[in-house]
Amino acid sequence: MTRVIVKEKPRIVSSDARRKMIESAVTLLAMRGLQGTALSDVLERSGAPRGSIYHHFPEGKDELVDAAIELSGQRALRVLDAVEGASPGEITTYFLDLWRQVLVRSKLRAGCAVLAVTVATDSPDLLDHAAAIFRAWQGRLAELYVGAGIEPGTASSLATTLIAASEGAVVLSRAQRSLEPFEQVAARLIETTTSTPS
Amino acid sequence: MTRVIVKEKPRIVSSDARRKMIESAVTLLAMRGLQGTALSDVLERSGAPRGSIYHHFPEGKDELVDAAIELSGQRALRVLDAVEGASPGEITTYFLDLWRQVLVRSKLRAGCAVLAVTVATDSPDLLDHAAAIFRAWQGRLAELYVGAGIEPGTASSLATTLIAASEGAVVLSRAQRSLEPFEQVAARLIETTTSTPS
Repeated sequence: MTRVIVKEKPRIVSSDARRKMIESAVTLLAMRGLQGTALSDVLERSGAPRGSIYHHFPEGKDELVDAAIELSGQRALRVLDAVEGASPGEITTYFLDLWRQVLVRSKLRAGCAVLAVTVATDSPDLLDHAAAIFRAWQGRLAELYVGAGIEPGTASSLATTLIAASEGAVVLSRAQRSLEPFEQVAARLIETTTSTPS
Repeated sequence: MTRVIVKEKPRIVSSDARRKMIESAVTLLAMRGLQGTALSDVLERSGAPRGSIYHHFPEGKDELVDAAIELSGQRALRVLDAVEGASPGEITTYFLDLWRQVLVRSKLRAGCAVLAVTVATDSPDLLDHAAAIFRAWQGRLAELYVGAGIEPGTASSLATTLIAASEGAVVLSRAQRSLEPFEQVAARLIETTTSTPS
């Protein structure tokens, strides 16, 4: 009995530790980029004990980064469920607001973990995963636009443009440490969406 | 006399070596990101002798990276002179084509050195410099749009959106190793520009 309890407790603790490490990696990737995300900093932020990285991520940093971008990707997909059935303008506004929150909460210091990995990785696997995440976001947004009455070809191009322009606008706002570039792009994207014939 | 000649020759050679190091840094930043740009790789690519980094860039890597993004920034500004007096659609098409060339020439492996630095630096000076470059591009594009008859406020927002969406589209195309996302965004940007009232 004792052994079972002893075994169970660490399992819960360690699953929680794993999650905290992934969350810390997401934050660090979004703020400092791929190589700026040192395993020592992930441990420090997550409060996880030394050695736990290789316990939870036996393949090392790439495996942790892979889990981090997966979490970022899934999280964005999940929150997009909130605009199921909404109008094209509401969908665009909502997606932009997710990025605005990233900028505001981080005092303009954080951006997209998936972008950070894309521009700095030499791992074909991580690049494939980043591509799959961008494609999943694009597919989901296009589906939402179609649900809002937009023709599939236009919905697809609108979705790709929304992601590309948001990603770029976040970078401009981080560099300039001002929301202004982001807001200029956001206003134009909303205008473009609402003037799209459905 | 001999001393003058001896002094002159290395000066010419070293100015060339400096330029080659900066060019190599631009390429590496665009392909591998900030920390992926190792000084040893810059030396190898540029064929510069060991020790020459600290001769030309006594403050080290940040000084080299600073020179590299300055070169990227100035180069883009210079080539934009070609569309002085062109129509809004031509300006947008030309700017997009600069990015398309970066993607095609690198077989979809390179992007923007300034973006790569923005998302990975912890230096306020480099971030300020990146911001100044983005602002200079934006200002120049806005000026060109105004010259093409677009109202200043619209020209400014069009310029910011063009830069943001191009930057993001380049990232999507690198991740997916396909020009498709870039072309979707490009088509939409050209359409938006040409339908902008002047």
